[in-house]
Amino acid sequence: MTYPTTIGIDFGGTSIKCALTRGPELIGDVIRLITADLDSPAQAITAMVTAIQQLREQSESPVQAVGLGLPGSVDIQNGIIYNLTNVPGWKSLPAGSMISEQIALPVTMDNDANCMAYAEWKFGAAKGMGNVIAVTLGTGVGGALILNGQLYRGSQYAAGEIGQMSIDYQGVDGPYGNHGALERYVGHKHIHDMAVSRFREAGRDPDQSPQLESLETLVKAARDGDEVSQQIWQDIAIYLGTTLASVVYLLNPDAIVIGGGVAHAGEVLFDPLKEQLKNTLSSEFWDHLKVIPAELGNHAGIIGSSALAADALTE
Amino acid sequence: MTYPTTIGIDFGGTSIKCALTRGPELIGDVIRLITADLDSPAQAITAMVTAIQQLREQSESPVQAVGLGLPGSVDIQNGIIYNLTNVPGWKSLPAGSMISEQIALPVTMDNDANCMAYAEWKFGAAKGMGNVIAVTLGTGVGGALILNGQLYRGSQYAAGEIGQMSIDYQGVDGPYGNHGALERYVGHKHIHDMAVSRFREAGRDPDQSPQLESLETLVKAARDGDEVSQQIWQDIAIYLGTTLASVVYLLNPDAIVIGGGVAHAGEVLFDPLKEQLKNTLSSEFWDHLKVIPAELGNHAGIIGSSALAADALTE
Repeated sequence: MTYPTTIGIDFGGTSIKCALTRGPELIGDVIRLITADLDSPAQAITAMVTAIQQLREQSESPVQAVGLGLPGSVDIQNGIIYNLTNVPGWKSLPAGSMISEQIALPVTMDNDANCMAYAEWKFGAAKGMGNVIAVTLGTGVGGALILNGQLYRGSQYAAGEIGQMSIDYQGVDGPYGNHGALERYVGHKHIHDMAVSRFREAGRDPDQSPQLESLETLVKAARDGDEVSQQIWQDIAIYLGTTLASVVYLLNPDAIVIGGGVAHAGEVLFDPLKEQLKNTLSSEFWDHLKVIPAELGNHAGIIGSSALAADALTE
Repeated sequence: MTYPTTIGIDFGGTSIKCALTRGPELIGDVIRLITADLDSPAQAITAMVTAIQQLREQSESPVQAVGLGLPGSVDIQNGIIYNLTNVPGWKSLPAGSMISEQIALPVTMDNDANCMAYAEWKFGAAKGMGNVIAVTLGTGVGGALILNGQLYRGSQYAAGEIGQMSIDYQGVDGPYGNHGALERYVGHKHIHDMAVSRFREAGRDPDQSPQLESLETLVKAARDGDEVSQQIWQDIAIYLGTTLASVVYLLNPDAIVIGGGVAHAGEVLFDPLKEQLKNTLSSEFWDHLKVIPAELGNHAGIIGSSALAADALTE
């Protein structure tokens, strides 16, 4: 299979990463722009155009399209960003056509979780499957859906907000009054806060506990047999597993792909998570279900946005 | 628009209803078979074939196809019933082709909730909408999904089990170990049990409370201003609204269509339900959302199965 050379841009709240790709492969280096340095959408667009031109000069074969993945809702029909999470000023902006005019190449845009899911479905952990739930665990909890072999985006291009689904109708407040929002239980900060209070309950001083330094140290502690740390990951598995079981009952997918920082917890999280799903799903839903870590790591956003741009060329 | 004449069969745990239809219209009477009278799938198939022949004789125009809606998972690709809820013996059965051979007409099969959703989408409350969540509230809680303008069935044809989604990870046990399964809060029997204990808590004798006779009397009591009854419907709205908000965050639909017995509660249920959704959804998801009662009532299953058979003729 030969793939066209395209550029993928992964626009995040911290940095904007741009790279050449050909199918699943990154070609050359990633250009990284610091989001906070760019005061306005106009500045950010100029910086992205400059990065695109640099990458085109480096490319051995002609670049055919550019894909842009963004942290918010993107009206892909009309090429308009509705709004970006944590990045002010990007409201109702036709960013794609603004870039396209300057570089004389087609530019596609999509939500960043959609780009990640598309990359994993096209080249990664869920390659070729019909129905896939993709979840990213980080500061927030994001999600995206591949249904009947294509990205499902919803009526206002906002589908996939797994982090806002409720695990407890009487639970802690979510950002929109949605009690029990999953994000408030398994977002990075909330895991940290829970860990601190669990250590305290166990009579251990959080300030003297190196296990609490980061998610990685909390994973290592669980792996090394620390029971309090193990219990924390088991509880995360119950929270996450409750929502994912609900999603499975609703959508009956082939696979759940889990990416993002927390996914690196490996078997410390995946073993109790699978146990939770097995214990709460009927066999019809569980027997064929795959629960798998994402494969493409940090570059999934670049690869996915680039793949969406490449595939739009032949649509 | 002219529609072909087709026969729709709504196979339920209590009765099997068969009728001629043309598009949204039932033609003539509904033939009703009693499910419990039919000891085996073979007997049921014979009885359905007889009913089909009677309807063909009554029909003024030639019948072109038969559609069968069933309470279970149906592999529509291979025309095989996986299993039926509450009807023994129907496992891995190619019922459609068994009927088709005897009547020399094409026979399609699908899940009953899918048939209801298809009818409401094609002719009823959700006519022509792109993304629709259909919920039926009865003894159990069923659901079906229209996504991107077509029925979404899932990898094992089992999607739409809204009643098994959790509203509380520590809640009452669902049938598969799924704590907090919605069905256990808003299924008919559970509403009744809750109402009895609420009346008792309020110092009223359940046995002397005509409000508890049926769901209809409980609706009427709430409408007439009985505060305990009103509170019961408000709590049902919170339970149901929690799950539906989660579904909306996941799928970002145009509409939720609610059918089944409980849906007749009207504004007693719909007002607090809409309030709950408004209070727990971000504006992106709420502003365009319609929450509407089903329109086609008891005949939705017949009309939907028949419409699926009619539409399969031109596929």
